[in-house]
Amino acid sequence: MAKPISFARGAPSLDIVDVEGLRSAADRAFTADPGRMTAYGTSVGYPPLREWIAQRHEVPPERVLVTNGSMQADAFLFDALVSPGDAVIVERPTYDRTLLSLRARGADVQAVELEADGIDVGALERLLAGGLRPKLAHIIPNFQNPAGYTLSAAKREQLLALAQKQGFTVFEDDPYVELRFEGSPLDSMLSLDSETVVYASSFSKTVCPGIRVGYLVGPEELIARIAKLATGAYISPSMVSQGIVNEFCRSGALTRSIETVKAALRERAQTLCDALARELPDARFVAPQGGYFLWVDLPAGTDVGALFAAAAQRDVQFVKGSEFVLEGAESSLRLAYSGVRPTEIEEGVARLADAYREVRAA
Amino acid sequence: MAKPISFARGAPSLDIVDVEGLRSAADRAFTADPGRMTAYGTSVGYPPLREWIAQRHEVPPERVLVTNGSMQADAFLFDALVSPGDAVIVERPTYDRTLLSLRARGADVQAVELEADGIDVGALERLLAGGLRPKLAHIIPNFQNPAGYTLSAAKREQLLALAQKQGFTVFEDDPYVELRFEGSPLDSMLSLDSETVVYASSFSKTVCPGIRVGYLVGPEELIARIAKLATGAYISPSMVSQGIVNEFCRSGALTRSIETVKAALRERAQTLCDALARELPDARFVAPQGGYFLWVDLPAGTDVGALFAAAAQRDVQFVKGSEFVLEGAESSLRLAYSGVRPTEIEEGVARLADAYREVRAA
Repeated sequence: MAKPISFARGAPSLDIVDVEGLRSAADRAFTADPGRMTAYGTSVGYPPLREWIAQRHEVPPERVLVTNGSMQADAFLFDALVSPGDAVIVERPTYDRTLLSLRARGADVQAVELEADGIDVGALERLLAGGLRPKLAHIIPNFQNPAGYTLSAAKREQLLALAQKQGFTVFEDDPYVELRFEGSPLDSMLSLDSETVVYASSFSKTVCPGIRVGYLVGPEELIARIAKLATGAYISPSMVSQGIVNEFCRSGALTRSIETVKAALRERAQTLCDALARELPDARFVAPQGGYFLWVDLPAGTDVGALFAAAAQRDVQFVKGSEFVLEGAESSLRLAYSGVRPTEIEEGVARLADAYREVRAA
Repeated sequence: MAKPISFARGAPSLDIVDVEGLRSAADRAFTADPGRMTAYGTSVGYPPLREWIAQRHEVPPERVLVTNGSMQADAFLFDALVSPGDAVIVERPTYDRTLLSLRARGADVQAVELEADGIDVGALERLLAGGLRPKLAHIIPNFQNPAGYTLSAAKREQLLALAQKQGFTVFEDDPYVELRFEGSPLDSMLSLDSETVVYASSFSKTVCPGIRVGYLVGPEELIARIAKLATGAYISPSMVSQGIVNEFCRSGALTRSIETVKAALRERAQTLCDALARELPDARFVAPQGGYFLWVDLPAGTDVGALFAAAAQRDVQFVKGSEFVLEGAESSLRLAYSGVRPTEIEEGVARLADAYREVRAA
């Protein structure tokens, strides 16, 4: 068998994780603050990390709640705001776990097409004009999972204006924001309107996934309500994980780690785009400016289910586009380049193109 | 103001936490297994720790699920097994967070009196004879929270016989088992019947609470079902926390830590019992053989609400008995001796006795 190559998992390869920085952050954290590192603490999180996050977003600490990974943050937010039958806007396509989480809560999930510059705000406006009253709009603004697209500055403002007018919350789910390797950063919606927006992010992409530290920023009353839910779920998030992240952030290791990760992602994305253009000219995609993912549309009628099987026979994994939508996207797929090195990318795309030729010929 | 003395929190004082052992376990863990420490992993937990726990309980690893603290394990178990209206047996008194968690799920909570040798099995048998069909019986068998009582070997067998006959699950919630400082250990109910029992425990009392690592042991099918719930909630528990615990356990630090903790608890419990006998002769209690807690009954009619306020004026905290029951226990209180050193215990009981005299005189 050939060496397996996975474009499936949105996770970094070990060579771009600063293990030595983590080891030394742990060492310093246990030495500097053993009392708070080892005690229960409270559900809002380890106070020094909560303060660091608050400063980063220029909000008071009372607006921040740290969680065991940002998916836990999403779950608490949905528990607090979404009741069965409530309409929730999502992007189409969107993160598969968000779809599962909302459907498990009985939400009326309304998918609005995602364009290369972000959610189709006109289509959303028409839905609202037609009487839809959503509780929440879930938006991944930067280097979206699965599409890799970024919401433009103009659409951020339009979306906020709609939310303010109709009184729904914008849930800005932003784990990839630090991973921009091309172009200029855009203002977060949180920074534009801190009452309408609840913001989530994570250290999974900048420190490492296994540390499981994420957070929410939102209105103080909502954060206090979610803190009660969190106390009831687990008393407090891991103080040891948070203490390590806090040292990692404050020592400058975070800044260095982000540079390492961005340099690798830039090279991997470029390699992937070049290889696709060369080996698989039928593939349509938008070159990402950051993040982990590239979305590929193949010609209409291409059976990506068959492609998945043919690729698996060649030891190549990806995720089918249909996983990220309620229905459709049957000729699309998501390629994650975060966990594969350039030589593997070249080889993986060659195998994928071979699989594609087999499927087209069938 | 006098120095505050808290008998309220069931948590260790920092002097009995092996901070140096934790620091060095973290160091070794990042060095030994950086790949699995820093990656997402899966919701069943960090494989080496899962295996260590499985060996400890003499079960296959497939029966173990590691969580971010054992309260999260409880929550998943309740989510998997308890629907609104389901009858659930609890001890009276019991852990306040368990009561809250069950009531939040709409369970029909049926409290059965806790005696000095554990739950009143005769009373439970009468409830069952009367037609009650519980889904689950929640039992804290060793050094119960809040009472400090231990379920006798005979009652363990009787309880299992009832569960087998009526087809309900015994939830053996056992975070204090390693903290026995008098008498001989008893067989866990899990070891007597691994199909009827789901077992939970934690490293909060033997490593430290801030690490937030707990676990469930149960039938393989149930564990697989809960693993899906856990994936949906947070992808995976903190691999960093679990990697540190794994090193702590396997290096022998755990055994040394347990000895340190037990020696301190033995002295603290003895000091507390002696001080109560001397300063507050109206107090009725059973000297604990392990764990963190001592339950005090004061003469009927004593207003523990007033005592709480009078103690607070003297900078002494405890938890009112009424917090641990659905109703009643108004002349009882819980004293936690885990976080207070012997000199503080002496001083705290003197202040409590002074508060009691004031309340009795009123």
